[in-house]
Amino acid sequence: MQLSLKTHSQTEMIDITGEVQRLIDASGVREGICMVYVPHTTAAVTINENADPSVPADMLMVLNQMVPWKAPYRHLEGNSPAHVKTALIGSSELVQVEGGRLVLGTWQGIFFCEFDGPRSRKVNITWMASTLPPPSQS
Amino acid sequence: MQLSLKTHSQTEMIDITGEVQRLIDASGVREGICMVYVPHTTAAVTINENADPSVPADMLMVLNQMVPWKAPYRHLEGNSPAHVKTALIGSSELVQVEGGRLVLGTWQGIFFCEFDGPRSRKVNITWMASTLPPPSQS
Amino acid sequence: MQLSLKTHSQTEMIDITGEVQRLIDASGVREGICMVYVPHTTAAVTINENADPSVPADMLMVLNQMVPWKAPYRHLEGNSPAHVKTALIGSSELVQVEGGRLVLGTWQGIFFCEFDGPRSRKVNITWMASTLPPPSQS
Repeated sequence: MQLSLKTHSQTEMIDITGEVQRLIDASGVREGICMVYVPHTTAAVTINENADPSVPADMLMVLNQMVPWKAPYRHLEGNSPAHVKTALIGSSELVQVEGGRLVLGTWQGIFFCEFDGPRSRKVNITWMASTLPPPSQS
Repeated sequence: MQLSLKTHSQTEMIDITGEVQRLIDASGVREGICMVYVPHTTAAVTINENADPSVPADMLMVLNQMVPWKAPYRHLEGNSPAHVKTALIGSSELVQVEGGRLVLGTWQGIFFCEFDGPRSRKVNITWMASTLPPPSQS
Repeated sequence: MQLSLKTHSQTEMIDITGEVQRLIDASGVREGICMVYVPHTTAAVTINENADPSVPADMLMVLNQMVPWKAPYRHLEGNSPAHVKTALIGSSELVQVEGGRLVLGTWQGIFFCEFDGPRSRKVNITWMASTLPPPSQS
């Protein structure tokens, strides 16, 4: 299954937790592991606090300081900082599904991370079977 | 299954390899993939050298330099650096299980990474079935 | 299954996409999730652009600036920067397999990341079953 989204800034974090849950609801999957995969090289996915919007804002501020916009980059497209941030944050996240619900911590949400926007983007959602013993019985 | 642990410093790496292996022993799982998942937004999990305790110490030193403690952070809770480190290190790790044992490299151990301690923390352990062909026969 | 490779520089990114695909071909696996796992503590794996070789070059340049070569490191082996980079980039990647092919984005390739070479290295490849509904039918 695939999510489509439009980003609106050069760097931006978008909470996709609700949309991932809706795909799980639609699929009928009850138990397993959900893989959220970003098929791009200048965008990533991470799990972090989605209660206070200042958290992703601070995260982008630090990442944008940590990875310099100007440096003797060789890649002529000019978006090397976006490639580096993608490698630091990562292309996929896994979340357990139990009883049809994402098993996230109290403050956790799933964020799509745009590092070279604005663009149209995709996110792939896949499921894996979890094996015995089911975590809920342990 | 779930591990509970207490951390004792603001930033700290705790080797949980033995405890994860004990949960696998208790579960009876022989083959598959073990997912180690941290349901917090200011703590993470990583795999690295657990032979010399200087390695995690050096790692924390660099992370604490790389992500500034003081910056014009907007998140009023004051722990934005911990959220950023969590995103850089990641919320989950996967390790293959073969014959009931974690398949780690010679120097690898699994570390819980506390970035906003001291606190009481949880780690979720889940299993996935690995499919044919079993890696041990390749 | 396992790949063996030789690295030739202290820090180096090697595109292993073709070799991972060849192992999948040889295995006969048609559907599932492929886990690419690096059993070392000074080498990692990432997914990024493999069209322009300047991208991995720029990535290594930034990582080598971000993690200082000289610092009051305590680990006497002298390769603490390699351990830190490994934690930042990560020890494993997951890629979906559909119809026997890695489901990568247009520009994505799988890179082995050497941070303390040159050395002889291993990469473990494992498969997980994906569960219903198959993503291709969504």
